[in-house]
Amino acid sequence: MNRQTLNRLILEKRSCLCVGLDISSISFEPIRRIVEETAPYCVAFKANTAFFEAHGWKGWKCMEETVSYIRSRFPDHFLIADAKRGDIGNTAVQYARTFFERMDFDAVTLSPYMGYDAVEPFLAYRDKWVILLALTSNTSAADFQFSLTPDGAPLFQKVIEKANTWAGRDKLMYVAGATRPDMLRLVRAMAPDRFLLIPGVGAQGGTVEEVMQHAKTPQGDILINVSRAIVQSEDGPGIAAKEFAGSIARFFS
Amino acid sequence: MNRQTLNRLILEKRSCLCVGLDISSISFEPIRRIVEETAPYCVAFKANTAFFEAHGWKGWKCMEETVSYIRSRFPDHFLIADAKRGDIGNTAVQYARTFFERMDFDAVTLSPYMGYDAVEPFLAYRDKWVILLALTSNTSAADFQFSLTPDGAPLFQKVIEKANTWAGRDKLMYVAGATRPDMLRLVRAMAPDRFLLIPGVGAQGGTVEEVMQHAKTPQGDILINVSRAIVQSEDGPGIAAKEFAGSIARFFS
Repeated sequence: MNRQTLNRLILEKRSCLCVGLDISSISFEPIRRIVEETAPYCVAFKANTAFFEAHGWKGWKCMEETVSYIRSRFPDHFLIADAKRGDIGNTAVQYARTFFERMDFDAVTLSPYMGYDAVEPFLAYRDKWVILLALTSNTSAADFQFSLTPDGAPLFQKVIEKANTWAGRDKLMYVAGATRPDMLRLVRAMAPDRFLLIPGVGAQGGTVEEVMQHAKTPQGDILINVSRAIVQSEDGPGIAAKEFAGSIARFFS
Repeated sequence: MNRQTLNRLILEKRSCLCVGLDISSISFEPIRRIVEETAPYCVAFKANTAFFEAHGWKGWKCMEETVSYIRSRFPDHFLIADAKRGDIGNTAVQYARTFFERMDFDAVTLSPYMGYDAVEPFLAYRDKWVILLALTSNTSAADFQFSLTPDGAPLFQKVIEKANTWAGRDKLMYVAGATRPDMLRLVRAMAPDRFLLIPGVGAQGGTVEEVMQHAKTPQGDILINVSRAIVQSEDGPGIAAKEFAGSIARFFS
């Protein structure tokens, strides 16, 4: 799926919600139910590989089943593998095959620490995306991402500057956390016409309002991921997703 | 396995060779053969998760079988999951369970980009290790790892400085590539009594001699990983491993 198509979906649906499937389940049924209930309110699903892997090969099989199911039942939803991989050339080639060929994900999250080598094999796929970690939403993002470089810019800014030269806005987007609005604004300034995948709304404390104000472009270019606050909601995932979608829709009027 | 035990194994065997199982195979038999042939010459095995994942759930099952087999047949060998994971708290907990509970690995490689949050859940396990990426052996390590911080030190040095405070030398070691001997020496100076896992010897051009001179301590504290040059050797993995072990043994006299 390319940028134009994804932005059209977002504007039509007036939602940029991505539902994060952080579910510890060895069986497919509870995942299927969450997908069914939330699909009307979101434009994307994000599978967190860790939760599947924790169940071993049966969990991995469940992830494959989940991907096939979403692909056939909701072909218009953007599908993200939140894998945060990052390894050199020949190993990266294997990971790209895994997520783009064996499973038909649209995008995979990658860590920038090893540089371009770790990203390049993923860029060979047409209409597939790399989502590069830039500014993460966790507390200890401060450990290295905020390290200053000699020109006074933090490391995450250097990551964006450099990675902007690796691929165009149809292939490469950034993770930018909702928990530090001032920095999120800086990310948007550094990447004015690229998609941002924004975690940190909900359980981690970021708000839809701040994120939409700081990071949405006129075209859209934004995916807000909510995981726990939807899949673990006491009201049920469908109702929680509908509520998030409601607070998002106001900004697409 | 703690540092003392691993160092004793290395000194007794006069080998610090780690065989990297970078094999694209859906069946366990070729992996078993490589393990059998090379075990006498090495003290560690490293499973590259990417090569297993590329075969989907069957590959993942093959990885579990490989781990069980090495654990029962060669219980004294140190067993590394080269997974290069790195994600926040609740997700990191899942990954730690996967590699330390579901599969009985001794160590897992992690990326430092997200900071301490991504490492901490792994440190809760007794006699298990985190192997943190510091200086990698690939060309584009230069993209960010060599970025200077305001005091003139490169980022990988800052990673080591900070991570040295996260856990002791019985729980945390670093990846330090063989391809840049001067920087490898700097890593050793920053972490004088910690294990280093050293990739980049063999196919990537680093030499055993340089690595041993720059990175070995009197106690050992070193694992030299060789993957392709052993598992894809025309002479067979056993003969290739024996040759590497021979050139290593000279430094343990």
